[in-house]
Amino acid sequence: MPARKGTAARPRDPVPGLVDSLLKGDKRAAGKLISLIEDDEPEATEALARIHPHTGRAHVVGFTGPPGVGKSSLINRLVRTLRGRAKKVGVVAVDPTSPYTGGAVLGDRIRMADTGVDPGVFIRSMATRGHAGGLALATFDAVRVLDALGMDLVLVETVGAGQSEVEIATRAHSTVVVEMPMTGDAVQTMKAGILEIGDVYVVNKVDLGNADVLVVKFQLEARDGWTPPIIRTAAIEGRGIDELADALMRHATFLDETGLRKQREIARARLEILENAQRLLARQVEAGSAFGKDFERMAEDVASRRLDPNAAARKLLPTSSRKPL
Amino acid sequence: MPARKGTAARPRDPVPGLVDSLLKGDKRAAGKLISLIEDDEPEATEALARIHPHTGRAHVVGFTGPPGVGKSSLINRLVRTLRGRAKKVGVVAVDPTSPYTGGAVLGDRIRMADTGVDPGVFIRSMATRGHAGGLALATFDAVRVLDALGMDLVLVETVGAGQSEVEIATRAHSTVVVEMPMTGDAVQTMKAGILEIGDVYVVNKVDLGNADVLVVKFQLEARDGWTPPIIRTAAIEGRGIDELADALMRHATFLDETGLRKQREIARARLEILENAQRLLARQVEAGSAFGKDFERMAEDVASRRLDPNAAARKLLPTSSRKPL
Repeated sequence: MPARKGTAARPRDPVPGLVDSLLKGDKRAAGKLISLIEDDEPEATEALARIHPHTGRAHVVGFTGPPGVGKSSLINRLVRTLRGRAKKVGVVAVDPTSPYTGGAVLGDRIRMADTGVDPGVFIRSMATRGHAGGLALATFDAVRVLDALGMDLVLVETVGAGQSEVEIATRAHSTVVVEMPMTGDAVQTMKAGILEIGDVYVVNKVDLGNADVLVVKFQLEARDGWTPPIIRTAAIEGRGIDELADALMRHATFLDETGLRKQREIARARLEILENAQRLLARQVEAGSAFGKDFERMAEDVASRRLDPNAAARKLLPTSSRKPL
Repeated sequence: MPARKGTAARPRDPVPGLVDSLLKGDKRAAGKLISLIEDDEPEATEALARIHPHTGRAHVVGFTGPPGVGKSSLINRLVRTLRGRAKKVGVVAVDPTSPYTGGAVLGDRIRMADTGVDPGVFIRSMATRGHAGGLALATFDAVRVLDALGMDLVLVETVGAGQSEVEIATRAHSTVVVEMPMTGDAVQTMKAGILEIGDVYVVNKVDLGNADVLVVKFQLEARDGWTPPIIRTAAIEGRGIDELADALMRHATFLDETGLRKQREIARARLEILENAQRLLARQVEAGSAFGKDFERMAEDVASRRLDPNAAARKLLPTSSRKPL
């Protein structure tokens, strides 16, 4: 397990005060709370428990798609369009903190800076290397902070592409899959799974190539009564952004009217409970204190092949986890 | 959570027979057992419990480094060199199954195929999308199968770069960090963490540039009495591979003589117990049956903001996990 960041020396604001400020719309408090989440500090747990009753109002939109399709530019433009409609907008950009890709996120930050001075906009790039609860949990904890801050929409941008990013996107109320025009060969590598997670599809950079090849490939069918629209955009020029905003608003209304919003909230709650439990286990093991010498003895027994790790694991989850609570 | 693969219709060999064959050195049995692990099937748990007492003999070497530095070519050459020294060698290549990078691994497979007919070599590319225990757990479960198969060394190749790959590498007995000559700017993006995890550093493709810039940057110091050597290789031409094999053998001897091997085994056991426990939790939640209606009620309470997810999670880990076992 990677070492925790050394932030202990920095003096902290007390959590109740931070949460009170957050609920009054204080962006600085939001920033500080997200830093606690990022650093996986114990105060974050307390803060999130206090915040939880004040969440559930923001519409959360996940953006996924391969690197280079222009997600940042698209989100940047969309933020401005939504502001024009008097919506308050939060953005959480996810940095998987690969040891090798540190540079990319800084670039995204700079590109997004021009919307940063507007008080109705909050943009944050998350770094969560070695977070015991995983990237998705930390990201959606940050989303909850922006929800409580009073944002009407929270946009989650995944940087790069991969399983964890798809998981993040699928936890949103609306998932936007972003692609760009490409040749038949490239379309082949676009996996089938992508066609199952999008509520809205965007073909960005339509000025760069024939979008029809891709649009035909999508072959989208209605799911639960919603046929995902395909929006053609050229984010740099601002083309198609109004249509994207309209599509997201339509999807939000659709979720409310059909009761699907509640279903999605429950599905996300299941995952969040599980991930919180997994993090609690990880913390107990990391701290060493929770299971004490018994855990150390088990680790030695596994290392010397007297005990298999799965059998050892069952001892961490006593019988009570196998029967009703 | 992603859907499990639909493999139920395929008839399966009984686990005890497969394990018996594996322990006699049957590569087909090894392949079938790794498929069970990959698909996260319940039989895998039974098989791994049976295998566990027969493991601990192989020396496990993790390879990490950014894409494009030639890890596959390096491993391919190293396998041949180790075979020349009468060592049996297993290779597990990790495919994070990003929805967008499916193509790369196939290429690696093809490049590695020329060592595939030798009975003393077993090469397997792992696909573990949506594995409930995570990539690292599945990978090291596969390593254990190759250990039980009788391999003297098991090489773990991570494809791409990122936190999970670094975690995989740090679980090995020896970790090889592979880089290639680059400019000062590129060196800046090589994060400090990389200088802490390597037992052996390789500067591959020395024919392509000035390796000294990179070698100076490494500034490696002794840790626990071992100063990581820096090996210069040109894998395509086979240069430096003997030196790499020598360095790995020296490190293996060093671990034995200092007792560090046992320490590393215990550290890995801690992680494996934790990950197995986390997977058990995930399975119970996924199955829906374990916690039954109480879990569903908790999810509804979290979704309607009557309960926060961390408080709900604590109910999955009853008091017994907070006191000694």
